[in-house]
Amino acid sequence: MSVPPEAAEVGSQAGAGTRADRLAELIAGEGLDQLLVADLVTPGDSSRDSQADVFWLTGFGGTSAMCVVGPEDRVFLTDFRYVERAAREVDAGFDRERMDGPRMLAQAAKRLRGRVGYDETKISVRNLRRLEEAAPDDVELVATEGLVAELRRNKDEEEIRRIAEAARLTDEVYEWICERGLVGRADREVQLAAHQRMRELGADDPSFPAIVAAGEDGAIGHHEPAGREIRAGELVVMDMGAIVDGYCSDCTRTFATGEIDDDAREAYEVVRAAQAAAVEAIRAGMEGSDADAVARDPIDDAGYGDQFGHGLGHGVGIQVHEPPRLAKSSEDVLAAGDVVTVEPGIYQPGSFGVRIEDLVVVTGDGIRNLSSIDKSLRVVG
Amino acid sequence: MSVPPEAAEVGSQAGAGTRADRLAELIAGEGLDQLLVADLVTPGDSSRDSQADVFWLTGFGGTSAMCVVGPEDRVFLTDFRYVERAAREVDAGFDRERMDGPRMLAQAAKRLRGRVGYDETKISVRNLRRLEEAAPDDVELVATEGLVAELRRNKDEEEIRRIAEAARLTDEVYEWICERGLVGRADREVQLAAHQRMRELGADDPSFPAIVAAGEDGAIGHHEPAGREIRAGELVVMDMGAIVDGYCSDCTRTFATGEIDDDAREAYEVVRAAQAAAVEAIRAGMEGSDADAVARDPIDDAGYGDQFGHGLGHGVGIQVHEPPRLAKSSEDVLAAGDVVTVEPGIYQPGSFGVRIEDLVVVTGDGIRNLSSIDKSLRVVG
Repeated sequence: MSVPPEAAEVGSQAGAGTRADRLAELIAGEGLDQLLVADLVTPGDSSRDSQADVFWLTGFGGTSAMCVVGPEDRVFLTDFRYVERAAREVDAGFDRERMDGPRMLAQAAKRLRGRVGYDETKISVRNLRRLEEAAPDDVELVATEGLVAELRRNKDEEEIRRIAEAARLTDEVYEWICERGLVGRADREVQLAAHQRMRELGADDPSFPAIVAAGEDGAIGHHEPAGREIRAGELVVMDMGAIVDGYCSDCTRTFATGEIDDDAREAYEVVRAAQAAAVEAIRAGMEGSDADAVARDPIDDAGYGDQFGHGLGHGVGIQVHEPPRLAKSSEDVLAAGDVVTVEPGIYQPGSFGVRIEDLVVVTGDGIRNLSSIDKSLRVVG
Repeated sequence: MSVPPEAAEVGSQAGAGTRADRLAELIAGEGLDQLLVADLVTPGDSSRDSQADVFWLTGFGGTSAMCVVGPEDRVFLTDFRYVERAAREVDAGFDRERMDGPRMLAQAAKRLRGRVGYDETKISVRNLRRLEEAAPDDVELVATEGLVAELRRNKDEEEIRRIAEAARLTDEVYEWICERGLVGRADREVQLAAHQRMRELGADDPSFPAIVAAGEDGAIGHHEPAGREIRAGELVVMDMGAIVDGYCSDCTRTFATGEIDDDAREAYEVVRAAQAAAVEAIRAGMEGSDADAVARDPIDDAGYGDQFGHGLGHGVGIQVHEPPRLAKSSEDVLAAGDVVTVEPGIYQPGSFGVRIEDLVVVTGDGIRNLSSIDKSLRVVG
């Protein structure tokens, strides 16, 4: 699972040293001496998602770890359960320390000095209080947000290789699902089969529980398959992704299970054209809100404006949802090395849903599409 | 997934009305007008674990939901994605409201009045700041911790039925795993097969990724199976659980894959005796630290004291780790209706591990053991 932090960069920050070096530079630019990188909401019981910054920075894939990084600091701390794993995985540029006992936060606080940033979205009120109590008197704790997440946007070649492999593997699962058929199966059975097939093909895990939403369930934002039988003659929205070597993919297709009515077919073609227009338009330098508009405008014009109730897309990497956002309210500007989804949809409550989603790498002159499954309406029996 | 909040209670708080009523009483006792119940670390992107309080209180199994509860308030808020699901699942005693757009926290803040508690372990520094900015001027926000979690300890009959069913299903998976054999299989293959079998038998999901740790891997605290082949003549620690209707189980067994050496056999028997002594001793009114000592003392006496580096057990319910704790440093007192694990272990680094874990319900006069798999050393080929 170890990520080589010195891998060649494809994005705009190429050649600026290790990940820790780039972060240290950013930290210094913010007027800080150190940044505490960790999930400080529930240390010791944290998830893959919440430890994404630490994984990116050090290659450590476990939980319950913290880093102290600054121009002069590269400290990695974990507890007794992960000492051996850390020795195998953590980048050699870090000093590794073991934390013991129930007061790990207090122990980490001893490593702090000067102006120390923490991510205010990743620390609970209680743990900030504990940190303040335990830190040396001359430490000033400073709220920051998303410094590491911003650097994580810029994927290097190895990261893109993993995401591309996760996307390829997901495409293979889609083909397999289509070949075995949908009609007469329960949505939940298809979901579990997709998860199983993903793992057989070598995925660490699904990147989220696969969505299988037939007919009227397709109009429900986050439908959870509960055993409804898929019938002939309806649309089925499937949204899934895999994790490969710690990196996620994300892809949605909408299939027909036979003849569908004209309303559903028209909506499908509107979404398909909107999605194609966005994929065509996206490039480095574009604002996330403008990318969203490229897909939203034709959906509005076709009269479905109030049936596309989410943003066009989001970044994908170690987490399946990460910066940047492609949405009306986004202030992000797309840059080379971003990996983002492009996923417009139309949802008719009580009737059907359509969503089509590709995963693309933003490059200097456009995009590289990592999702290869055909987007013309496919009939699956 | 909906939990009937009026179900008969088996524990000490029996007959005190609905869950929301009991919480309102606790809130009033703390001098508060309202409690905000939610995962306010990452609303909109929260997990099953972080939404456990809301699930217990209302029966709502989705994410991105908040409740405002007080003697005069039963408000449930969720976003557009979950409106239909909330209508199906949320207890009828709650007023349901839909939150829109990116400022859901600000919208929820409008419902607050008087002295309002929040759980300081479940809110990020940023979201407390946002809440303070958005709340009416006369609202006083007060830090609390674990009020709902404390009530959740006391499981009612329906909750125990679900946990018992999850435990029974896990036992069935263990039998199946033993019958198909271990020797020659990769640890990761056994893990995935266990997950798959669990789901086939009707589990929602595994309650955590199953641990399959053979030989020297058994001595690593949180071993993640990575493809090591299980060989004849070693100990294999397996730790797994299922989720059934939203409730978890947790059970560990250590198997032998043939003749093992005397050291390993002796350690097994020490753990087995320590575990049996603890299961025998545990009852309502006992301190968590005393329960821990019942198992720890014989392990110490046999000379393995420094090889049992974790607590004896933890509560299990909607979350696989929840209060109370059975550990040296625990200040919890066991009560009827607690469901806890009893899981001593011995870990010889570089050599082997042994852990034996049952899941038990604490009753007035002892325990009811939900794990039924035999604990004499079983040889699995």
